[in-house]
Amino acid sequence: MIAIRLAQIEVEPGLPGRNAARVLQALEVAIRDGISLLVLPELCIPGYLIGDAWERPAFLQDCQTWNQRLIEATSDTQLTLVFGTVSFDSTRKGEDGRWRRYNSYIVAQDGKALVQPVLGMPYGIKTLLPNYREFDDGRYFYDLRKLALERDCAWSKLLAPWDLTIQGQNLKLGVLLCEDSWDDDYAQRPLQVLADKGTQLVLNLSASPFTTGKNGKRNRLFTEKARALALPLAYVNCTGVQNNGKSFFSFDGHSTVYDATGTIVAELPAFQEASLDFQCMPSTRSVGLLSAKAISRPSTEVAQIGTALRYALPKILALFRIERVVIAVSGGIDSAVAAALYGSILPSDRLLLANLPSRYNSPTTIALAQTLATQLGAYYTSLSIEDSVALTRSQIDGLHLPAGAGRPGRQLRLEALALENVQARDRASRLQAALASAFGGAFTCNANKAEATVGYSTLYGDHGGFLAVLGDLWKHQVYALGHWLNEQVYGREVIPSGSFSIVPSAELSTAQAVDEGKGDPLIYPYHDRLFHAWVQRWQRATPEDILCWYANQTLSQELGLDFSVDSIFPDVQAFIADLERWWELYCGMGAIKRVQSPPNLVISSRGFGFDHREHLGPAFYSQNYHVLRARLLSSKPAAMCQVTKIE
Amino acid sequence: MIAIRLAQIEVEPGLPGRNAARVLQALEVAIRDGISLLVLPELCIPGYLIGDAWERPAFLQDCQTWNQRLIEATSDTQLTLVFGTVSFDSTRKGEDGRWRRYNSYIVAQDGKALVQPVLGMPYGIKTLLPNYREFDDGRYFYDLRKLALERDCAWSKLLAPWDLTIQGQNLKLGVLLCEDSWDDDYAQRPLQVLADKGTQLVLNLSASPFTTGKNGKRNRLFTEKARALALPLAYVNCTGVQNNGKSFFSFDGHSTVYDATGTIVAELPAFQEASLDFQCMPSTRSVGLLSAKAISRPSTEVAQIGTALRYALPKILALFRIERVVIAVSGGIDSAVAAALYGSILPSDRLLLANLPSRYNSPTTIALAQTLATQLGAYYTSLSIEDSVALTRSQIDGLHLPAGAGRPGRQLRLEALALENVQARDRASRLQAALASAFGGAFTCNANKAEATVGYSTLYGDHGGFLAVLGDLWKHQVYALGHWLNEQVYGREVIPSGSFSIVPSAELSTAQAVDEGKGDPLIYPYHDRLFHAWVQRWQRATPEDILCWYANQTLSQELGLDFSVDSIFPDVQAFIADLERWWELYCGMGAIKRVQSPPNLVISSRGFGFDHREHLGPAFYSQNYHVLRARLLSSKPAAMCQVTKIE
Repeated sequence: MIAIRLAQIEVEPGLPGRNAARVLQALEVAIRDGISLLVLPELCIPGYLIGDAWERPAFLQDCQTWNQRLIEATSDTQLTLVFGTVSFDSTRKGEDGRWRRYNSYIVAQDGKALVQPVLGMPYGIKTLLPNYREFDDGRYFYDLRKLALERDCAWSKLLAPWDLTIQGQNLKLGVLLCEDSWDDDYAQRPLQVLADKGTQLVLNLSASPFTTGKNGKRNRLFTEKARALALPLAYVNCTGVQNNGKSFFSFDGHSTVYDATGTIVAELPAFQEASLDFQCMPSTRSVGLLSAKAISRPSTEVAQIGTALRYALPKILALFRIERVVIAVSGGIDSAVAAALYGSILPSDRLLLANLPSRYNSPTTIALAQTLATQLGAYYTSLSIEDSVALTRSQIDGLHLPAGAGRPGRQLRLEALALENVQARDRASRLQAALASAFGGAFTCNANKAEATVGYSTLYGDHGGFLAVLGDLWKHQVYALGHWLNEQVYGREVIPSGSFSIVPSAELSTAQAVDEGKGDPLIYPYHDRLFHAWVQRWQRATPEDILCWYANQTLSQELGLDFSVDSIFPDVQAFIADLERWWELYCGMGAIKRVQSPPNLVISSRGFGFDHREHLGPAFYSQNYHVLRARLLSSKPAAMCQVTKIE
Repeated sequence: MIAIRLAQIEVEPGLPGRNAARVLQALEVAIRDGISLLVLPELCIPGYLIGDAWERPAFLQDCQTWNQRLIEATSDTQLTLVFGTVSFDSTRKGEDGRWRRYNSYIVAQDGKALVQPVLGMPYGIKTLLPNYREFDDGRYFYDLRKLALERDCAWSKLLAPWDLTIQGQNLKLGVLLCEDSWDDDYAQRPLQVLADKGTQLVLNLSASPFTTGKNGKRNRLFTEKARALALPLAYVNCTGVQNNGKSFFSFDGHSTVYDATGTIVAELPAFQEASLDFQCMPSTRSVGLLSAKAISRPSTEVAQIGTALRYALPKILALFRIERVVIAVSGGIDSAVAAALYGSILPSDRLLLANLPSRYNSPTTIALAQTLATQLGAYYTSLSIEDSVALTRSQIDGLHLPAGAGRPGRQLRLEALALENVQARDRASRLQAALASAFGGAFTCNANKAEATVGYSTLYGDHGGFLAVLGDLWKHQVYALGHWLNEQVYGREVIPSGSFSIVPSAELSTAQAVDEGKGDPLIYPYHDRLFHAWVQRWQRATPEDILCWYANQTLSQELGLDFSVDSIFPDVQAFIADLERWWELYCGMGAIKRVQSPPNLVISSRGFGFDHREHLGPAFYSQNYHVLRARLLSSKPAAMCQVTKIE
């Protein structure tokens, strides 16, 4: 039996020294605990999401120095160390023309990195590189398949288990890096190759960010593969928070051991550093638990999301060096949930809630904001924007621009919509920003994902802030998170019930008077799902698809609505006008505003920013769309949908 | 002899119908002109930079419909059509799990797409996919190498010339897509394979954005390859502007024909739609010009840059649907150059210059702003920010936050730096934004690349705007562009000479009083070059490299300075303090601000945004850096640099 430990450590991207120190410490403890094989996650020295810092030779050399130090730390020990890191070859080029880099792992024993005979390198490398969502592996790393092409040999020739002797016992150890085990969409099957070559145990070293539902998918996939190949499989993932500038990702760990029947032997909790000890009998491919671990996996989607947000937020604040936070609270649900979320991780003297009313804010919402602050126990202030808005108006409205050569004189006018934006900017860029400076902190953006989709916010106004912590939550998820915070985190009403029940409104004009039941133009129960189909659906929908489903009367089913859109729109004209209005905004002003939006924290399978890449340009309508539209508007029934049905 | 036309058309990304209409028109004209072979650029139907819109099945199907229409348009004609487009296979998966897409080209004759026998597909596909800078080909397309792996055959087996009969003449035509010819950094040599298989003429269909110096590099590379392989080579590139949200790129066309000795036979002008006709004798691999074309290639770097900016700007304005522009002019060089640039492409009644002084703005700079507006002939206004800044101060400074459970009462203070930011935000988010609304336009961001590198700007202040048109120009390039505009575009002084000579200053405090020679903390002649080494140098430099060069006394040479840094810094302490100050800002607040910065227009080999990807995190210092730093500060001379010299 070989005693194996999966070390689920936090990884800090771009800080190899800090990460190496963690590995060294894990190594010391493992030696003390009599562990024979210590396993760490993918890229646990450099980190994963570090943008183009891979192009810095000094960074790569520094990682190499740390790699070497870890290798040497196995000298005079009985321990075998397997860790994911970056390796490079300055004598060969990557396809970007720079030093060739590998997403690699090192197997170290007796102070030396073992050489993989089939590769002829003192490390193993990744075979399958993900290039989707936030992953840019192909941009940064040379993979095993390219190496095989270069060497003019079969890729599978270069992949083999390591023939190890660990404390006198032989082990054919297969090591894969993350995507290597998610091979369903690839023409190569690394796990199958390892199994065919007599592998007795497979390690999967990962750097896999949290996404709602992803762990369930992994368990199904890994269970199936372990069973099919009759191979025990140990998955080790890191914790921590990494980002690509615009998009932050939490890494949930959740390291898991599957036995050769696919059964989960043990699983580490999410979002905390921990280790999992198990033993393996190579000859029988059997694995057994050494240390019992309690698992407290959140069971509901909202609990998963809430846990991820509460885990990531303090780390993001630390990264930005923000100690104090200012939140503009309107009395509405988004700012209330944001406040409750920050309040759940910050001391009460670090949080300032500010209500910044104009003449259009109702006593109802102002009272809700006050109640929220009281129930949360945060600092609270109320400052009016009336005087400044009046000043801006007096400076601009009616301003005369004198005539000159080729241009007539002109008098400027601030129209109604412009005045709404003046208010929003006055709140954020004048008051919130100055409050944040004076309070010694930063102010937040409270926008949700539905608003972000169509740019329902004012640039340099409520669009601003250091982080849009709810920016990847649809409106219905914001409500759910609010209930979860009240019930599960606080165990009492912090967010007032009135903030859940009041009509969502920007309160920037009399047309948005909440006490008269007026508010946002977004009908969230419908638009949340419509936008989801554009942004998050696997086969990304466009107006053509929406119209096709509408014509086929499958729209409610496709979008997951529990009502018919006929209950919202009086006729097809209104339905189409609404569809085009928001589609134009999603592709147009929404996208333009997202370029300048704060970072968000991705919890979905597609978050705006680096995960959902987009260009700016006119909205796309297909030829089929125009045909369908014309038919629907001319009210020709039957067989309206000629377009290919999308899965 | 076969008459061939390269059609250098403008491509509008994401609008296949508009692009197909252009190709159809080119086809009609070519038929009329008796052309036998018409060649169009890479991805000329879908466009290239369209973010993740490749994931929309309706978009792919729409492109396919247009492809088919173009193919059919060759029915009953003598014309062979070769065009780059997207092709897909919905029965196979790409590595993202979605429909498999190919960056492909179609060869159409007699109303049919010819089938490439070695591939067994009615199109050819790209072999080498660029995954660097703004390119994400591997994210979106399946390449010929992956196809070979899937089919378990040599990649070179799948690449072959087309055996064409064009108006009774045989032609072995090789077709490559862009990167396929830039193979120096790859293990595969597509051009060599085509040559080995008896190819008589090679077409390179490209979608290649403008970068200063790139055309010279292409001419050297293509000349060398054409000569080495004794193969004529025709390069066709599109024009237009495409973007990845944050980064805009201009496509300069510049289509070129090289003969079998590598000599340039003809070359189309940059940044305009045009066509180039030549004839080819397949048996002798000879090419000759059919239509003489005048070439007016800008000769200097600044002329190239200025031409690219003036070409792209009207297209970007159209894309944003912006008809009028507001520019805050301080009297300094950046805003003056921005104003002169916009003034050179907009009618005078579409441009409003605004001087927005506080008590810190000197009469000198205010007069320069006025002179600029007069010389440019644009609308001009002056609005003070004094009252609003005073109002903000009165609302925030001294504000009392009452005590509560667990938190003491607190009095807020607006410190000096905070007041500088209040001024900058007041200008942009209050006045410029409201002016833009009232004028019916948008306001600009005038930041240059040195400022963008270290975040020397105020978020929601001078950092804001719809576009940072100078955001990819170093300060010295801004000055050069200013001179070029005055001399080459206007032929008179539009930008006042005082704006060139005055010390650069934000004028936000008495510490920045220009009339006393005080200004920005940036020493542009040095910092421009230092930042360039971090951002744009091929092997990206870090403080370790800088310190190493400093210690080796090669810093001036490495950075291209015409002075010694000893003339700027009194001692090594000051040198290191400056280095760390700006490095921390580049990695820290600079990067944080760039997440929310406006788009820029990339003209360099590395522009911020999608081209220069980055994460947010603490500044990286290598172990070597710390060692070197300690040695330098302890004044130990000689052999200070132990680190590997970076090429």
